[in-house]
Amino acid sequence: MSARGAERQALVIVLTGQGKGKTTAALGVVLRAWGRGMKTVVLQFVKPRTANYGENRAAKKLGIEMIPLGEGFTWRSQDIEKDKAAVRQCWELARQKIDSGQYDIVVLDEMTYPITYGWIPVEEVIDTLRRRPQGLHVIITGRDAPPELIEFADLVTEMREVKHPYEKGLKAQPGIDF
Amino acid sequence: MSARGAERQALVIVLTGQGKGKTTAALGVVLRAWGRGMKTVVLQFVKPRTANYGENRAAKKLGIEMIPLGEGFTWRSQDIEKDKAAVRQCWELARQKIDSGQYDIVVLDEMTYPITYGWIPVEEVIDTLRRRPQGLHVIITGRDAPPELIEFADLVTEMREVKHPYEKGLKAQPGIDF
Repeated sequence: MSARGAERQALVIVLTGQGKGKTTAALGVVLRAWGRGMKTVVLQFVKPRTANYGENRAAKKLGIEMIPLGEGFTWRSQDIEKDKAAVRQCWELARQKIDSGQYDIVVLDEMTYPITYGWIPVEEVIDTLRRRPQGLHVIITGRDAPPELIEFADLVTEMREVKHPYEKGLKAQPGIDF
Repeated sequence: MSARGAERQALVIVLTGQGKGKTTAALGVVLRAWGRGMKTVVLQFVKPRTANYGENRAAKKLGIEMIPLGEGFTWRSQDIEKDKAAVRQCWELARQKIDSGQYDIVVLDEMTYPITYGWIPVEEVIDTLRRRPQGLHVIITGRDAPPELIEFADLVTEMREVKHPYEKGLKAQPGIDF
């Protein structure tokens, strides 16, 4: 925790909407915070555990904790109960990180999806956020953020898709999209 | 330029809208790209030349070119002609960076403002983008992106303000907002 923790007004930030830039904006905060010597952890709820995208490579080089948690629960599998259990484990890890008091910022990337699926109860999320250590910023990204979370958050931006390159048949680009 | 330049489909990306997260998302791309060893330059059209925000500190530590160009043209001054001349100079620098062929990504942060003011002709911007080196991604941020730019771009996201912390009287926070 930075020494300025006590003076800070900690924010709960939700980045949602169908457009691109939600995770990317969270990564921008990670960069800014790193520049200020703040401690961040990024929990990626959907990225496969083998993820070695641009952000994972950068985080590794910078000593930022970035933990891809997915694959176990891509909700493509046939075994829903197993997926649910895996998500619960990820959420327990997220809670530990939040409660630990060791971070300035916790990013819960793409966590709206398991909330929407009902696999993580939104009340439990809000309760954890409400009782979080003083000074801790939390950023949650993903489409379709639930109304209760929007109500509780301090800052909510909806990324609205005006024009999407995939419409033109352009593929996701390294360094830009991942 | 990375060796993969030729295979890439270079994008023109516009991040606009009244909500927060435009510059921040551009910074997220900078982080990803840095993680992949790509070369980026960020020209900040509005940030004062003395800027030492989280992103400037991070860029310095990472060896990323980030050039705050503002102050000379905050359009708060009484001498509009001087401001316009300063903006023109900044735009010339931006063009040099784009034309140089030395970058994978050029970020023109908050450049929509001088375009909206009519100080940088949008036709000139689009002409420069159209003739840019192959493989170069360009990201332009700022509110009220002009329709011509949206039309030309490959990817446009509008950051829509759902809830803003300043409404609650919460101030901009270091590491999050700057």
